[in-house]
Parts: sequence; C-alpha cells; structure tokens
Amino acid sequence: MLADFLTRVRQQQPLVHCITNYVTANDCANLLLACGASPILADDPEEAAEITARANALVLNLGTLHSQTLPAMLAAGRQANALGLPVLLDPVGVGGSAFRTRAAAQLLAQVQFTAIRGNSSEIKALAQGSSPAHGVDAAPQDQLTSRTLPQTEALAQSLARRTGAVVALTGAVDLVADGQHSWLIRNGHPMMARVTGTGCQLSALSGAFLAASPGQAPLALVAALCTMGLAGELAARRLLPGQGNASYRTGILDAVYHLTPEELEAGASYEMR
Amino acid sequence: MLADFLTRVRQQQPLVHCITNYVTANDCANLLLACGASPILADDPEEAAEITARANALVLNLGTLHSQTLPAMLAAGRQANALGLPVLLDPVGVGGSAFRTRAAAQLLAQVQFTAIRGNSSEIKALAQGSSPAHGVDAAPQDQLTSRTLPQTEALAQSLARRTGAVVALTGAVDLVADGQHSWLIRNGHPMMARVTGTGCQLSALSGAFLAASPGQAPLALVAALCTMGLAGELAARRLLPGQGNASYRTGILDAVYHLTPEELEAGASYEMR
Amino acid sequence: MLADFLTRVRQQQPLVHCITNYVTANDCANLLLACGASPILADDPEEAAEITARANALVLNLGTLHSQTLPAMLAAGRQANALGLPVLLDPVGVGGSAFRTRAAAQLLAQVQFTAIRGNSSEIKALAQGSSPAHGVDAAPQDQLTSRTLPQTEALAQSLARRTGAVVALTGAVDLVADGQHSWLIRNGHPMMARVTGTGCQLSALSGAFLAASPGQAPLALVAALCTMGLAGELAARRLLPGQGNASYRTGILDAVYHLTPEELEAGASYEMR
Repeated sequence: MLADFLTRVRQQQPLVHCITNYVTANDCANLLLACGASPILADDPEEAAEITARANALVLNLGTLHSQTLPAMLAAGRQANALGLPVLLDPVGVGGSAFRTRAAAQLLAQVQFTAIRGNSSEIKALAQGSSPAHGVDAAPQDQLTSRTLPQTEALAQSLARRTGAVVALTGAVDLVADGQHSWLIRNGHPMMARVTGTGCQLSALSGAFLAASPGQAPLALVAALCTMGLAGELAARRLLPGQGNASYRTGILDAVYHLTPEELEAGASYEMR
Repeated sequence: MLADFLTRVRQQQPLVHCITNYVTANDCANLLLACGASPILADDPEEAAEITARANALVLNLGTLHSQTLPAMLAAGRQANALGLPVLLDPVGVGGSAFRTRAAAQLLAQVQFTAIRGNSSEIKALAQGSSPAHGVDAAPQDQLTSRTLPQTEALAQSLARRTGAVVALTGAVDLVADGQHSWLIRNGHPMMARVTGTGCQLSALSGAFLAASPGQAPLALVAALCTMGLAGELAARRLLPGQGNASYRTGILDAVYHLTPEELEAGASYEMR
Repeated sequence: MLADFLTRVRQQQPLVHCITNYVTANDCANLLLACGASPILADDPEEAAEITARANALVLNLGTLHSQTLPAMLAAGRQANALGLPVLLDPVGVGGSAFRTRAAAQLLAQVQFTAIRGNSSEIKALAQGSSPAHGVDAAPQDQLTSRTLPQTEALAQSLARRTGAVVALTGAVDLVADGQHSWLIRNGHPMMARVTGTGCQLSALSGAFLAASPGQAPLALVAALCTMGLAGELAARRLLPGQGNASYRTGILDAVYHLTPEELEAGASYEMR
C-alpha cells in the first residue's frame, strides 16, 4: 500500500518549493529529482509567495535561517494555506537559539502546517519550549528508545493536536503522530547521522509525498520516512571498503533514484500503534 | 576545430567570476576547476565590481536571486562592460516570478551581455515576456523539437538581435543563435535533467570558454555546449548498475576533467544551419 | 603523538560553529562529520553569538562574505573570546577586494584569534597588506618553495607575533608558525587544488582539532594539516581510471572518515624547524 504513494510521486512529478538552508540545498534538490519530483528554491520575500503559487507543496526549513528570509517563509506559508497546498515545517535547531525559537513560534502562529518533521530534541522544543539540541542533532537524552517511547509519543501527539499538523519525529526509530494514531518506522541506518542534512532531505522528500497524496498526510509521511530509511539501508549495504560518509551521501540519493514501489512495499518496516 | 577552444581554456586557465545561486554553486566551481579554469564566487555589492575587475569573465545567474544581490550583479556587469570582459546571463526561472522578470529586464537594460544561456521557457520568456516554466525546468510545450524548431529559432534570433548577445537555448537539443547564423548541438543525455544545476554548470563553463576565445562568442558557446553534452554522454555510459543521479552528477564533472580536445573534436555533434 | 590529536577529536566529538561561504558549506559540514566532530552553521547576527556559546570552537571564513554577515562574525568571535573557545580565521580572498581586507582588519582588531589559516597570498596580504591572489588561489609568485621559505617563514612568524594567533600557511608545502617555532608539513597532493574548498574544509577540520586539544594550538594545527594532506594522498592513490576532481572530492572525505590515529601517525610528514 505504501507502494502507491511512491508511484503517485513518480507519476505526478510534483514541484516542491523549498525555502531551506544553503548547507544542504543541493542535496535536497537532487533528492527531489531522484524520487521523481522537481525542486524550486527561492527565498526572497519579493517572490516567495508567487513561487509557492506555482508549486505543489512548500517546505520551510530553519537551517541557516536569516532575518530577511523569515518574511519570505511567512508569505509563502500563507499563500500555500490560501491555495490549499501542503506545507511542511522542518524546525532545524529550534531551541538552540532564541531567534529560531521565535521564528518557529511565528510560523506556527501564522501558518497552518500540514506536517512538522524534526528530530526528538526539536519536537520536544516545539512541544515544551525547551531542550536545546547538540547543534542540529538530537541530544542523547532526547533519543527515542523503547523506554522513552511513551512520553515521546505523548509529546508528539500533543504537538499534533495543538498545531493540527501531522508530526514526524525522526531518529534511530521514527514516529508519526496525527493527534490520534501513531506509527513507528524502523527503517534507516546509524550511518545516516554521519551525512549532513539527511533530515533536511527527508523533509524535502516528504513535501513531494504530501503533494502527491492529498488528504492522506499521515501515511504519505510514513511512506516518505520508509523511502528515506530504506534508501539508507540499501546504500549502507552497497558501500565498498574504504568508502565513507561522502560516498554514502551519494549512495542514498542513488538508492532513492532506483527504488521501485515494490521494493518500498517489501522493505518498509512500520507498524501502527 | 572545437578542440582549440578547450585547449585555450586549459592553457589560459581563465578566472571566472560567478554571481550565482547557493544550490549549485559548489558544482559550478568544481566544473570550472574540472575544465581547467578557476572560479571566484562573490556577490556582495561592496566588492562585486572589484572582483570582476580581477577576473576574465563574469557569469550572472538568477537562481535563488536576492534583492541585495541584484545591485551586485548590475555593478559587476557594468564593470565587465567597461573592461571589455565577456558577460553571460543565465536567466534561471525568468517568467516564473515578477521579481525575476524585472531583474532580467534591468540587467538587459544596463549591461551589454556577450551571451545569454537558458532553457526554452526562459529564452521564450525573455524574448516574448511570457511562458513561465515548470519551476526552473522548461515547460513541456516549450521543448525544442523538429516541429518547434523554426519558431524557436526565430525567437532566439530575435532575442539575439535585440540584445546583441549570442543566445544559447539548451534542452534535449541545443541551439546557438548569434542574430544571423544558428547552430544545432545534439550532444547530451536525458538523464542530465535529473541532476540539479546542469544548466547553471553549463553557464559557468561557457564563461570560461568565452574568456579564452575573445571575439569568437558563437563558436565558444558551441564548444562549451558540446563539452558539457559530451561529458553527459560519457558519464551515462560509465554509470554502473545501481548508480543514480547523484553518481551521475559526479560522473559529469569527472568526464569534463578528463576530456581531451581530441575527444571533444571527435565526439562533438553540431551543425551550422 | 599526532595520533592522540585525532583520537581526542573522535572521543570528544566537538561541535564546531562555522560561519562560512555557501560554496563549500556542505563539504565543511561533511568533513567535520567524517572526522568525528559535529558541524553547526548559523550566520545571522540575531543568533550567531548564542550558537557559538553552545559550541566548542568557532571558524570564521570570508568566502562569499556578505555585509550582513560581518556583524555576526564579530559578535560570535567576541563571544568565543569571552568563553575561552578557540577561534580560527580563514581569510579567503583577502587582498582581493577592499571589502575583504577591511573585514579581516576589523575581525583581527576585535577578536583574539587562536589560529589563522590561509594560502600564501592570503597570509602575505594579512601580514603586509598587499599581494592580491589569483581569485581565491595563491598567486604563483607567492607559492612556498625552498627558495621562498625563509622570507615566507619570517612573514608568518611576524603575523603570528602581531596577532597572537598560530598561523597555518598552506599550499604544496604547509607551514605552521606560532611566533617562535615553526613546522613544515609535506603531506598533500597537487590534485587537491582542483577541488573547490579544500582550504575551507581544512579550516573547519582545524576548528575540531583545536577544540579537542586546548592549549596545544600549534600541534593541533599540525595534526589537522597532516590529516587533510594524508587524506588527499590516500584518495589520490585510490582514484580509478576515469575518475576526476569530483570523485576525488568524495574520496578525500571518505579517507578522513576511515583514517585511524595509527595511520595518521605513520603517514604524517612534518618536521619542526
């Protein structure tokens, strides 16, 4: 059934408008192309809303946030809302500075998000207004484990209910929470944490999946998370001796490029709780 | 004969000043190094013109255009004109927003361009003031085919005559028009459309070729287009099973790095019309 | 003995705050992850100092410098000084524009740097206020050779004494000068000059080494330079026929990822003078 979500991305080739950071922008664009979608990156307030109006989804990513980009995000987000387009928030590093925390609060106040994707520290910071991460990575004590699952799930559900967005909390294990139900995803590979921006890439990919399956946000996110995680597994298996995180970065994108809906169906490891 | 154009780039190692987008900047820089040229990227209005004055060519690319970058482009462009340096415009996404359309118009009004390189939708938008692209890609109906060739050629020639720039329209087939003659280039590979920024890279490469062969802009562009297209063909042939668009991205750069003038001469597929 | 410097980076996983250019930001981040450290990139004046306060080292890189980024660098630098964190300056292209030269002067006046890493033209420009580079590369006449070594060493030592920073001048041969002693490093490979940003990457890497070995800045820099140079050697040996500068870029990062402290110890080629 997840297969259909990937098939629809490939068929519809949604155009995903990303307002994102300059560190991982190239990977986000190439990942969208790998999965069959199209990227457009544009972050000047003069044109952001107009670009969104021509796109099929909007992804707002707080990495390397600039003061002058925030108005662009707000305008683009409101435009997406007006047109009924899916909007995803990737609150990179929220909790790590007052600036990012304020920016996230402003975005959540003025834009109705379809989805929020972050690591456990970022989701915790949004839900509780605390827990700064170790840089842009989740703090060790925030990692989702079987022990912390109940409280993490409660946190994600409360954020989902408060914002009306489906929450995707990603890490060693991923959790999708829509305010009512939740899903656990066990695809992925530890080495993904050694490639910068796999989270940003996943957010861009999620934008494509949300665009291609309107009205099915929770499962679209599950499908996107399984796709990225499975690509991470496949790329890890294909690494040759001597290849490190840079080859792995290339391998993940290559794996998404070749992943078939059938392979996704067979390799996806998820359960509804 | 095209061989000589590549040879001169390798011999002269021109320094190409790129004011370009943050999505593909790294690839543009590495492609310039691959072909034997040197990149310098600098886009602050405080220094843009001064950097241009030390360079051998200037490439202005509208991807991820910022309000504060436009004055830098104008100043750098005027500086290049004053010094007689070649200047290339890559009107990424023009027609896709009023901001980019205005920026392109301002640049064309204040800077004498040596060359303009864009996809069919971008060239159409510049020539006619219409035809927004699908994001940063050409719209399907704008693709250059044998059926659309006559009208596309007329469009490119009219833009060339109006601006005094040689126009390079690239896609499945490429067209170079200097206001009088035109050339068709049939190198390239469909998979290049699955790598973000191959167009941006081609514009950077064209800057190096223009710098190394002053007074021969049309053929310098033909040589640059054949070089990039041939690299795309070679890299496609060398792809291993399982390799996707990310490996292909690397492969194109590698192919330019190793391309000899003789291979370019033998592999170039172009005709004057 | 250099082995211990790499071991400490791997054990402590320092968080390195980079305010750097958008051309090579992705490589800098992935190199930090390759060596076992963590990157955080944030350059808005609103948050720069706060991000620095949570990091273990700060790296300021002048590539693609923006007017609005300079206040962020100054604030972050003063914060690092207040907290006793190591701060490294990479004066990319200094001497190439009045803007960069002024920016470097302002940074040196307001921030106490632990280290300065640049090519020979950049170090010369800082020390003498002259010698513009060929773009962001060292000018041929500035290259460190056995003939120019005495005067280059004197220059680096005088800059080190004037600024109180350890100076790392890198090129075909690298020189580390702490105002008193100097070290020559002979690791590296000529092809590294064909990959954009190997200097930027080395600066980011140096930030991690400085963070992990406080109070030992000269040898921490020697260790970082040997690590990067050795990775360049290893990656060059592993290149397959047909692979060029793009594969080499990937290979350098991969080599750092797998480099063991023992291999560093065995492969490092340096001498105290």
